[in-house]
Amino acid sequence: MALNTRTNDRFTGTLPRTDAETASEAIPDDATLCVSGFGSVGYPKAVPLALAASGRDLELTIVSAGSAGDEIDTELVEADAIERRYSFVSRNAIRTAINEGDVAFSDRNVSSVGDEVQYGRLADPDVAVVEAVAVGEDWFVPSTSIGQTAAFVEAADRLIVEVNHAQPLELRDLHDVYRLGKPPEREPIPLTDPDERIGSPRIEFDPDKLEAVVESDRRDTPYSFRDPTAADRTIASNFVDFLREEVERSPVFDERITLQFGVGSLGNALMGELTELSSSDRDLVYYGEVVQDGLLDMLDDDLLSSASATSLALSEEGQQQLFDGIERYAEDMVLRPGDVSNSPALVDRFGVIAVNSAVEIDLYGNVNSTHVKGSRLINGIGGSGDFNRNAVLSICALPSTLSDGDISRIVPKTFHVDHTEHDVDIFVTEHGVADIRGCSPLERAELIIEQCADPSYRDDLREYLEAAAESSGHVPIDPKRAADW
Amino acid sequence: MALNTRTNDRFTGTLPRTDAETASEAIPDDATLCVSGFGSVGYPKAVPLALAASGRDLELTIVSAGSAGDEIDTELVEADAIERRYSFVSRNAIRTAINEGDVAFSDRNVSSVGDEVQYGRLADPDVAVVEAVAVGEDWFVPSTSIGQTAAFVEAADRLIVEVNHAQPLELRDLHDVYRLGKPPEREPIPLTDPDERIGSPRIEFDPDKLEAVVESDRRDTPYSFRDPTAADRTIASNFVDFLREEVERSPVFDERITLQFGVGSLGNALMGELTELSSSDRDLVYYGEVVQDGLLDMLDDDLLSSASATSLALSEEGQQQLFDGIERYAEDMVLRPGDVSNSPALVDRFGVIAVNSAVEIDLYGNVNSTHVKGSRLINGIGGSGDFNRNAVLSICALPSTLSDGDISRIVPKTFHVDHTEHDVDIFVTEHGVADIRGCSPLERAELIIEQCADPSYRDDLREYLEAAAESSGHVPIDPKRAADW
Repeated sequence: MALNTRTNDRFTGTLPRTDAETASEAIPDDATLCVSGFGSVGYPKAVPLALAASGRDLELTIVSAGSAGDEIDTELVEADAIERRYSFVSRNAIRTAINEGDVAFSDRNVSSVGDEVQYGRLADPDVAVVEAVAVGEDWFVPSTSIGQTAAFVEAADRLIVEVNHAQPLELRDLHDVYRLGKPPEREPIPLTDPDERIGSPRIEFDPDKLEAVVESDRRDTPYSFRDPTAADRTIASNFVDFLREEVERSPVFDERITLQFGVGSLGNALMGELTELSSSDRDLVYYGEVVQDGLLDMLDDDLLSSASATSLALSEEGQQQLFDGIERYAEDMVLRPGDVSNSPALVDRFGVIAVNSAVEIDLYGNVNSTHVKGSRLINGIGGSGDFNRNAVLSICALPSTLSDGDISRIVPKTFHVDHTEHDVDIFVTEHGVADIRGCSPLERAELIIEQCADPSYRDDLREYLEAAAESSGHVPIDPKRAADW
Repeated sequence: MALNTRTNDRFTGTLPRTDAETASEAIPDDATLCVSGFGSVGYPKAVPLALAASGRDLELTIVSAGSAGDEIDTELVEADAIERRYSFVSRNAIRTAINEGDVAFSDRNVSSVGDEVQYGRLADPDVAVVEAVAVGEDWFVPSTSIGQTAAFVEAADRLIVEVNHAQPLELRDLHDVYRLGKPPEREPIPLTDPDERIGSPRIEFDPDKLEAVVESDRRDTPYSFRDPTAADRTIASNFVDFLREEVERSPVFDERITLQFGVGSLGNALMGELTELSSSDRDLVYYGEVVQDGLLDMLDDDLLSSASATSLALSEEGQQQLFDGIERYAEDMVLRPGDVSNSPALVDRFGVIAVNSAVEIDLYGNVNSTHVKGSRLINGIGGSGDFNRNAVLSICALPSTLSDGDISRIVPKTFHVDHTEHDVDIFVTEHGVADIRGCSPLERAELIIEQCADPSYRDDLREYLEAAAESSGHVPIDPKRAADW
């Protein structure tokens, strides 16, 4: 675990240290920047702010594996500096710019963004700009997230490292950086247990790439989670009732239940209910992409054996709780690169139960998790596709309506599909559970209406389905009626 | 490779040999049968025919990993014996029954059908009925396909083995049966090269399950491929032009190009063009799910280093060519279980280039590969999802129109999505190549119209796109106009 190279210095060796303004001048106006950051934490802050304040006429392409914070996705947007942005966002300014067509965006799966940059054609990065808690001449230690930073650094021509004094050096205890090889010589990831460590706390780089090392002192913007609603709590209770039966039924869960949860307030509520399951003899394990507050409490209470992720999506209190006890948490918590945390092979190997939410679902079992009315981007697909597709059991949990019941989230046909009928097994709302495994399209539609839709929308949905079934084949669909919904 | 247990006998040990009629009587009227077979070959024939002729009032659920032939999907359908059918079909009778709502069908990814039966809830099999070229007290050797037969046999309560004298015993030389473990103890598949062997020619089973061994003497119905059309040849030529540049660009292809092709006449035409690429210094390797005629010729001509698949989808001549030279072909050809041939982990590890076709594609990059007008099933998704999602490069190749140009296969919005915008990188038609990597939805739509649509449909598609872009956000969509298309 590279303990022999451990040091309490944030800077080791001869480094090209400078200030953020000077470093930012090395970035061409139309550069493609790959930035660290995932779950709006662990992203560079000083260099983006310097770029935003530069008054330059910038046309940047900015690539991150997950969401970044305001220094990138608000300040640079307001400076009109971003022309393209991949592959996930969560701030209003960038979302608006994308939806208004001012910024070109492509929505990618977390697991493959690194490969798409290194071996595909998503972007050809000029500079990688990363946040670190410590740096040497050919390595740095990431801060609160790992994401696809290692792949980005390998792909970029040059590297700027921001050492953030507001991030504790002890974050290194959480990191396990394992690098995938290049296909076709890529080896299987040698991870046999979700809490195993197979890498190092450091990301290594070609020292010739190191353009600048700068300092910053800005904390990540913490998450704020709303309290669970009554609907959230009923969804959580339906979910656990279903899971209790399922873990008895399938031999995959004889000894261990390995779960992934999508980030958000509903995710936190679902986690809260899991205490119900942990009374059993089985170990509970988290193998997902973000660590949320709920997981810290479960680790504290020994309800969870271990947690593996690529990012720390914590509230202010959660952040403090973690920072105050990093050494203790590091015994059972690991942060990994996104191509390991979200690896299709590992999600399959560990028999993960994936639990994610959606904007809306349709009667055919398709899930829209990204675009309102099929058109206006919210955040992006993130890791939901990696987990939904490869999990042994894929669960989509969502409230049946939004806007106080004025809009049904269960629609005849969603016009933006992120997860197809082949990807999701179970739908859970506050009204019940639709287990669509082995169902024909018509059976699926009936189950989703009767088990998941809000009762006030069921008649309309039934009417749609009956009309569609009269005039069509295997899949009972009526595009015109669906478009009129 | 179990050579010490090699025998030229088709029957070894004490076996419950009987005739198909008697064996079929052990199958309950409402049984769930898991059958061998993939690509319409290697499926059981005598027992299904006996069931079809029995006059019994059957309500069977029949599960196969790929398509079966007429003995199952015509004869049993005409006997009104099938109530449910998973997970892929290719015969008119069963297709019609599914589209008319007489048979319930669920369309699944090849890689996961085995797990869905063993660990999920797709079906709870009573009896596995398999075709073999040889059988012992606790093993059999599959015939012309492997599919998910091993998983089915493990999951079923009982087993009926059909030894088919029309299938050469030497087929055993092609088989490499490796079994995945149960999650969460599942190990990485230890395959480091596409032509490596890691298993045995036999599928093993619990001898207590063996209900009956019967004989048959019916050949698989061979494939008939049409000659490539002019459009097929232009598509193939566009495809190879694109690929020639791409393999120079990405370091993944420095030494080897590993390809998968969907089955069909277009697939054969595309393969034919590959001779263009093999003049280079790079090895060409096939890692897919079916061996088609074209691959045999390429192996003969040393244009292809090796071929790995789960089934032999050959014409009558191709079948003869293979049977006449099995020993020679076995040096460079391997048949594997479907969860190995289509493994997401291996498709990623080997840097596979996936090439599949579609019923239609839309301006957003979504692919419908299964349902005409989003409703009438053709065959099923098969392995296209496994390859499209996990390949380092995913290519969808299709003619831009059908019915002599009366119908555009490029539509504003497809109402059945099998592969989302996250899955496919490149579209190829006879008009050109749209490389949509890194493109925003609007850019994707423009590229697909200008590069791939038939010129006679471009104005209409442009008009749709302009109207949609006016009234919407990130994804320029107009559901009502799309439904009117």
